[in-house]
Amino acid sequence: MHKSYIKDAFMDLQDHICGRLEALDEEGKFLEDAWERPGGGGGRTRIIQGKHIEKGGVNFSAVSGDMPEKITKALNIGATEFFATGVSIVLHPKNPHVPIIHMNVRYFETTSGLWWFGGGIDLTPHYVDDALATDFHKALKTTCDKHDSDYYPEFKKWADDYFYIKHRKETRGIGGIFFDRLNEERGKKEDLFNFVSDVGYAFPDLYANQFESNYQRSFSEQEKEWQLHRRGRYVEFNLVWDRGTKFGLDTDGNIESILMSLPAIAQWTYKYKAGEKEQLTLDKLKKGIDWAG
Amino acid sequence: MHKSYIKDAFMDLQDHICGRLEALDEEGKFLEDAWERPGGGGGRTRIIQGKHIEKGGVNFSAVSGDMPEKITKALNIGATEFFATGVSIVLHPKNPHVPIIHMNVRYFETTSGLWWFGGGIDLTPHYVDDALATDFHKALKTTCDKHDSDYYPEFKKWADDYFYIKHRKETRGIGGIFFDRLNEERGKKEDLFNFVSDVGYAFPDLYANQFESNYQRSFSEQEKEWQLHRRGRYVEFNLVWDRGTKFGLDTDGNIESILMSLPAIAQWTYKYKAGEKEQLTLDKLKKGIDWAG
Repeated sequence: MHKSYIKDAFMDLQDHICGRLEALDEEGKFLEDAWERPGGGGGRTRIIQGKHIEKGGVNFSAVSGDMPEKITKALNIGATEFFATGVSIVLHPKNPHVPIIHMNVRYFETTSGLWWFGGGIDLTPHYVDDALATDFHKALKTTCDKHDSDYYPEFKKWADDYFYIKHRKETRGIGGIFFDRLNEERGKKEDLFNFVSDVGYAFPDLYANQFESNYQRSFSEQEKEWQLHRRGRYVEFNLVWDRGTKFGLDTDGNIESILMSLPAIAQWTYKYKAGEKEQLTLDKLKKGIDWAG
Repeated sequence: MHKSYIKDAFMDLQDHICGRLEALDEEGKFLEDAWERPGGGGGRTRIIQGKHIEKGGVNFSAVSGDMPEKITKALNIGATEFFATGVSIVLHPKNPHVPIIHMNVRYFETTSGLWWFGGGIDLTPHYVDDALATDFHKALKTTCDKHDSDYYPEFKKWADDYFYIKHRKETRGIGGIFFDRLNEERGKKEDLFNFVSDVGYAFPDLYANQFESNYQRSFSEQEKEWQLHRRGRYVEFNLVWDRGTKFGLDTDGNIESILMSLPAIAQWTYKYKAGEKEQLTLDKLKKGIDWAG
């Protein structure tokens, strides 16, 4: 399986997802910024500011070049060239009853022969709806189980641990799946690609279910305010703890593309008091909840 | 000079500054949260949500206990107890023509005999006004020059380097002064304390000059929107680059107190376009501008 095959598949995935999201939004269209990386490769950043999706990005990139020395040292390998391609998505809805969602699929290889896939999907409801959280995790489990029954429990735990706002002692949302460094030790490249591809194509269905259940629901000022504070937490996670964001900011990446994950507007209030209903959500921002049952 | 003297002086400084700021705000009053640190010591977090100061914090703390091993290793010293006291301030005004301001003074010592002072003041105008930027730096230079004519040039450069948003390639604002580890190599403890104390007491006058010049000025929606985007940059600096914030988040500090520095509301827009007037400010967010002349 040549890297160009994976790259093309990821571009197709981006197209497919953008089409589905535009249909959900009813009005918004993605605007594309094609960019090139001075060291090699480039990407297609696509941003939507829609009727229902307040701010969203569906980004594709495929970059290559000399591997930074910092990384060859960390990987304990000699000088080599790398190739990395992926699709990254974050969607911030207008309606606080619709969750924030994040998806990423990625592939990495070096000319020295290393390769792996990574990715994940996680959901950040402003208000946790148990039935929808269960839907989400069950669908992820179904996608995983088609490939390996060990995947869901392993990658669900990985997501709980990864999407954790350590300084707030709370998870970012209700988790999902997260995986990295899936290589020849975990399966054949074709099989792993098929898994990652299934995760990518599962995304629009997963999101449509969350979106359609609530996008027409009315909401109060208090619910909107709560949403803006939850977005504040999202900003905190992404800027303080997210490894991908940190890596991008440290290595002079495409800043506007990396920070598309930040919401249009976020709010911080000293010791903001959650109401009773909001407290029900806070109580569920914990690791280890068995949503898939 | 005993640590309790410095601690008491910093508490007095906090009282003095809060009084001055309440007078400027006309309506807002600081609400105090006294807190204790499980490992030793505590603080007085004071928050204002006023008529003109949208969100501000003037925090005092004096903490002590066993030094974390991570730090004794970094300092290359054996097990010891530490004492740290300081006053930290961030003020976010409602009016975009009034700048954001930050001030910090701090003192640190260990039972093994190490001690030093640190601190600084820096200004983040949403719109840079050359005359007010010059006022600010000239007043800082005057305060520094009373103690040592080397201080201002050295600490001004240090602020330019420290308050730099690396991933945006822009300074946080127009800088100010920043200094750290002022110890017996730099002067007698009494003299260094007097310098730090002068910096602290200079703060309300410096801010009053900025505030009074513009707090009654009308502003447009575009100016307000620009302010919210500049606050987004402030969030980025504090969460990604500020060492004090990182240290607090890493070491399980008083999170609400540490993150009082974040604005009430901030905004992010993909490739937000600065207008002509806003571009004039961006052009001045550079290191090495000789504001004091």
